[in-house]
Amino acid sequence: MAGTRLEEFYKEISADLVRTVQFWLKYSHDDEYGGFFNCLGPSGHVYDDTKYVWLQARQVWMYARLYNEEEQFRKPDIIKAAVRGVEFLQKNAKDPKTCKLCLSLTRQGQPIKIQRSIFSECFYTMALSELYRTTHEQKYKDEAIEMFDKIIYWVREDPTDLRLGLSPLPGVTPVNSMAVPMMLLCVLDQMETMDSSMSENYADVADWSLKQVLNHKQREGSIILENVSPSGEELPGSFGRLTVPGHAIEAGWFLLQFAKKRNDKELKKTAIEDFIVKMFDHGWDTKYGGLFYFLDVDGYSPVQLEWNMKLWWTHNESMISFLMAYQETKDLKMLEKFEQLFDYCYSKHVDKENGEWTGYLNRDGSICMDFKGGPWKGCLHVPRALLMCKQILGEILGK
Amino acid sequence: MAGTRLEEFYKEISADLVRTVQFWLKYSHDDEYGGFFNCLGPSGHVYDDTKYVWLQARQVWMYARLYNEEEQFRKPDIIKAAVRGVEFLQKNAKDPKTCKLCLSLTRQGQPIKIQRSIFSECFYTMALSELYRTTHEQKYKDEAIEMFDKIIYWVREDPTDLRLGLSPLPGVTPVNSMAVPMMLLCVLDQMETMDSSMSENYADVADWSLKQVLNHKQREGSIILENVSPSGEELPGSFGRLTVPGHAIEAGWFLLQFAKKRNDKELKKTAIEDFIVKMFDHGWDTKYGGLFYFLDVDGYSPVQLEWNMKLWWTHNESMISFLMAYQETKDLKMLEKFEQLFDYCYSKHVDKENGEWTGYLNRDGSICMDFKGGPWKGCLHVPRALLMCKQILGEILGK
Repeated sequence: MAGTRLEEFYKEISADLVRTVQFWLKYSHDDEYGGFFNCLGPSGHVYDDTKYVWLQARQVWMYARLYNEEEQFRKPDIIKAAVRGVEFLQKNAKDPKTCKLCLSLTRQGQPIKIQRSIFSECFYTMALSELYRTTHEQKYKDEAIEMFDKIIYWVREDPTDLRLGLSPLPGVTPVNSMAVPMMLLCVLDQMETMDSSMSENYADVADWSLKQVLNHKQREGSIILENVSPSGEELPGSFGRLTVPGHAIEAGWFLLQFAKKRNDKELKKTAIEDFIVKMFDHGWDTKYGGLFYFLDVDGYSPVQLEWNMKLWWTHNESMISFLMAYQETKDLKMLEKFEQLFDYCYSKHVDKENGEWTGYLNRDGSICMDFKGGPWKGCLHVPRALLMCKQILGEILGK
Repeated sequence: MAGTRLEEFYKEISADLVRTVQFWLKYSHDDEYGGFFNCLGPSGHVYDDTKYVWLQARQVWMYARLYNEEEQFRKPDIIKAAVRGVEFLQKNAKDPKTCKLCLSLTRQGQPIKIQRSIFSECFYTMALSELYRTTHEQKYKDEAIEMFDKIIYWVREDPTDLRLGLSPLPGVTPVNSMAVPMMLLCVLDQMETMDSSMSENYADVADWSLKQVLNHKQREGSIILENVSPSGEELPGSFGRLTVPGHAIEAGWFLLQFAKKRNDKELKKTAIEDFIVKMFDHGWDTKYGGLFYFLDVDGYSPVQLEWNMKLWWTHNESMISFLMAYQETKDLKMLEKFEQLFDYCYSKHVDKENGEWTGYLNRDGSICMDFKGGPWKGCLHVPRALLMCKQILGEILGK
């Protein structure tokens, strides 16, 4: 059945990509102060003008990527907005001494919050790198390399800058949180688009990150746990038992992409079977459909209040994963899972009238929050998934 | 109808109080390392042994209060556990130099997290003060006064210690968050139980806190906003439009109690009409029953993912508020609201088999998280509400 719907998938996703990009182009640009409005209601109304750095940087990256990879988006407006976005961050979000970026800014650009993590910096690095691909301006490449080197230094050598003056307390358990090595793999993949020397220069980072991600495979390969010890042991308590199915499935396509580059059969198998298929089966809600946000591997109630909600991005990333797995294996079961996700999303998350997806659903699939953009939802997961799925479907269909 | 059910309310609540206290006595004591287990499953199983300082201190306070005010709980076991609890915090959670307490500890007592706020310290002060009422040991009174003076200094004179080395960023909007002056009113009420000189000594703090709470009454008295400017103006964006109905209703009984002490008619009226009744009408979910956790006063989606959940504590605090308002006014409408809350809670939150309440429900009233204790739910709101409601009902019924 799924096999006969490839044209339908391609058509729906292509139309959705246009609607979604239009949404951001139309409503999110702040022509007065630069950067983007992030908090946009169901039909684009700005309900808060705080600017979130993850989302600013991701939108720059997305615009540059769309410009680079889709003829229809190769337009001066898009690249101008991306450049204005990165300039807003350079001017306002980045501490030139430490290279730390803040987490949120006022509309005018004054820093509000800063986080003890590498994520603002990673999204910013990706934005610079993709802008280099578009503009070929050396300054973007140089800054991307400078930032990436700094991030690697923080993660692998000395996290002092990240701590913002607060030493870790004696009860803190050292942790390998999957988000960190995953993020490094993702930035690395981006850096490699700039220059073929990159994969050589960062081969060691790639090996380390890969190993750190694979350490999350626990309990004889039956589950991907979100947090493990630095040496790859399971951690105690709710924190140690936490799974984030959509995040593990996302890691799956990062790994699969990596394995394809290296032509690593064993890694392809691990990515598809352990990260994608098993974690989909673990995370899918058989009662109402959709992926749970958080679960506890031993079946306790997770302690996160939003655990049973259905979030757009976990479904976006899963669509990419299963389509990539299908393209790789030609196994129809992969396409059937994609179909299951497609039908869920196009009946629950998609807004055909206004573009972009409604991000946050209650467990039963009803809308919990109606906005299109919020403090943690911007112009990334939906358009990236639509672009990538369109590309893969296009390849499969020989377009 | 509600008027004829007073005996039933009294009986149900009395039985529930016993069940609930038994739950904590039976499952939460850590006889090996001191303090209390906080993370307890539906029937008492410890699913995580992290110790949360708010909850440790609140349990000490609750045990001491139960010992002081209910003959059936005046037992050596209860007071011994309270003393062991406070000793665990003195030894492990408190920095003797700055008087800052941390937020969470390992089971053995090593600090894990620390927060830039006054709440660990306030709950600890309340615990010390109530223990003084029980034991008459001067050391508890002295430390409670020392802590309270420190807290007032942080809030009103110099917050440097609270900032833990991080200066506020230039984009941060100064804010009067209702939790702070509410908390001070609550601690003050506690301090006054130790000694009649307290209300004189802290009269200035009382006036200031009262004014700061009342500044949250906005839009011509139609709404209580959670965050306002220090000078009492509405703030922009989602943060400024946020309401937490159950929190405003809780502030209502704090104010009403304060007004009763001062015999302040105007304040009684404000407490009941603006904080309790209006915010109940604003926050009640007419479709499924129960109080929404967060709302946006202009009807936008709140940005908190848990906004539409039904939480035990908002209902506990509202039960106290309406019963206290009924006792004060003899207005049957107040008792009817209490009845509405009682019927909601005793069909959704209460666990008659195991004791304690199931805290976190989905919007439709189904159980979202089945545990009885978690990182933010301990031995306070349920037993305090049951104790206070039992006391008020007892007074009304002339028991």
